[in-house]
Amino acid sequence: MSRLSTQISESAQKVNKFIQTVVDTETEPKVLYQAARHIIDAGGKRLRPFLVLKTCKLVGGNEQDAIATASSMEMLHTFTLLHDDIMDQDEKRRGVPSVHTKFNVPIAIVAGDLLFAKVFEAITKNTDHKSVKPKRILQILQELSEATIILCEGQTRDMLFEDKKTVTEAEYFEMIDGKTAALFETSARCGGIIGGATKTQVKRLGEFGRYAGIAFQVIDDILALTADEKVLKKPVGNDIREGKRTLIVIYALKKANKTERQKILDTLGNQKASVEQIKETIALMDSLGAISYAKKMADKYITKSKKALAKFPDGPDKEDLLSLADLIFDRQN
Amino acid sequence: MSRLSTQISESAQKVNKFIQTVVDTETEPKVLYQAARHIIDAGGKRLRPFLVLKTCKLVGGNEQDAIATASSMEMLHTFTLLHDDIMDQDEKRRGVPSVHTKFNVPIAIVAGDLLFAKVFEAITKNTDHKSVKPKRILQILQELSEATIILCEGQTRDMLFEDKKTVTEAEYFEMIDGKTAALFETSARCGGIIGGATKTQVKRLGEFGRYAGIAFQVIDDILALTADEKVLKKPVGNDIREGKRTLIVIYALKKANKTERQKILDTLGNQKASVEQIKETIALMDSLGAISYAKKMADKYITKSKKALAKFPDGPDKEDLLSLADLIFDRQN
Repeated sequence: MSRLSTQISESAQKVNKFIQTVVDTETEPKVLYQAARHIIDAGGKRLRPFLVLKTCKLVGGNEQDAIATASSMEMLHTFTLLHDDIMDQDEKRRGVPSVHTKFNVPIAIVAGDLLFAKVFEAITKNTDHKSVKPKRILQILQELSEATIILCEGQTRDMLFEDKKTVTEAEYFEMIDGKTAALFETSARCGGIIGGATKTQVKRLGEFGRYAGIAFQVIDDILALTADEKVLKKPVGNDIREGKRTLIVIYALKKANKTERQKILDTLGNQKASVEQIKETIALMDSLGAISYAKKMADKYITKSKKALAKFPDGPDKEDLLSLADLIFDRQN
Repeated sequence: MSRLSTQISESAQKVNKFIQTVVDTETEPKVLYQAARHIIDAGGKRLRPFLVLKTCKLVGGNEQDAIATASSMEMLHTFTLLHDDIMDQDEKRRGVPSVHTKFNVPIAIVAGDLLFAKVFEAITKNTDHKSVKPKRILQILQELSEATIILCEGQTRDMLFEDKKTVTEAEYFEMIDGKTAALFETSARCGGIIGGATKTQVKRLGEFGRYAGIAFQVIDDILALTADEKVLKKPVGNDIREGKRTLIVIYALKKANKTERQKILDTLGNQKASVEQIKETIALMDSLGAISYAKKMADKYITKSKKALAKFPDGPDKEDLLSLADLIFDRQN
């Protein structure tokens, strides 16, 4: 394992331990707590918590002070996954049934709500006022609530998109800015705030997180069409069936001739599309240069992301954050 | 109008104005903000915000400092209503279609999430650090998140009850403690915290709120069976159709003979029960003394609630809180 992978897995262990304590499956009513833990226990890379811990260290902070916030970032992320899966009617997540599939819709709603409440409880209860000033803790809570508002707006836009015939590239980027980048940005900013960063440093860390988050989502959209199903842990091509207007689809529709365009539109959002039809559509979009275009855009954002760290002093923590950006680009799932 | 009604309506106006600013229906995507405001704009008594403002004043605090928290209490309450209505499949609320009925389930989920996020944004952004120390603001946020956790547990228990054949009186009180009393308790405690109350004062205010909240829910359950439909703004007897195990039902089943018991069980949770059948069942439970028993229990909690204020100095604010307890008992809707 690379130095970065070892570190990510070490920080994931700390975060998992914290979450297991604050969302304890032995708490009554057990079904609620089990539902809240279901997707967390199923895996996940814990990149957002890692970002909190690393940015905290980068500005000279103590990692221990950031554990509650780092873990909360994962709980916040999971809360949105639980609710998004209901809204998008996704039956699988991380290789297991989604919460509303395994339990039911009401339990998935309330388990999401519980996780969101736990975010604020965990931070207010477990952040040491002596190491992190109350004013800074309040700042973190404000950042978190603002990020959630942006996530809600992003998810709503995403749903409205599915009914829309044409979505522009600008609209796509606005949407993923809200849906994914906001939480990466907030993770990086909050790590900085806990670590005692200056306003300028917090801003730069936010840029690093945001651009890395945009790249993360573009790569996610590519992997949803091209990855090995066993590695991806969900059916390849689901996005096509659901009619998702990803960068790949937008670019392909722009480059397609009339016949090609019709072929793509016939498959997009067609719940009854066969595996063969999905495969052909993906191949068609690839031949139109859509996948390599998306890859190029992701690369562009990774470069922007790394640039945002330029003014931080060199050292192992900076190296790790730069490697994290590369990992986001190169990952296979 | 009585002195109390005038005050409740004045504080409601301040709270409404604040909410209209932080949840502005002109914000994009508009459908999200309109959905979040739908039930707030449809009415409601704003008793929880009133409790925050009054308890703040009772301990010598400045009402202005408590507006953001008071308004947040209403937003938090509304967030739970939006999600509960989906889970309970309730089609009406405050005389208008529920959010998932007027919009759709996904929008109702995300609009609830938005309101919850707005709670924390409003308080962290709009509470003056000079008047209210950051430590006290953090304490309020912790109280709020803990109350929400209790609400989630209460809602889950409520759902599990519907599948249960026998529910005891103790289980009923445990459930409404979480479902309703927790937020009344938190409202009273938070008003105190903002106003600079001592620990003992905060505890006593919490007891006042909690007992008043229990009485509020028992009265709510009575009104759901006995009120004038036009005043209640929802179909009378819905609770019977949904199979809700209220104090009235629990008492009636205990007192009923075999034939009466069967008659009640045949109607309870029977979606196809006719209006006539519902009416007969309510009359039967009434003749078994169930409604007067519930009324007696509500009265007991109102008395306990008032007692919790005994050690606060006499004056108009205390008088108002005592009248509020009476109003909760005497209300017709």
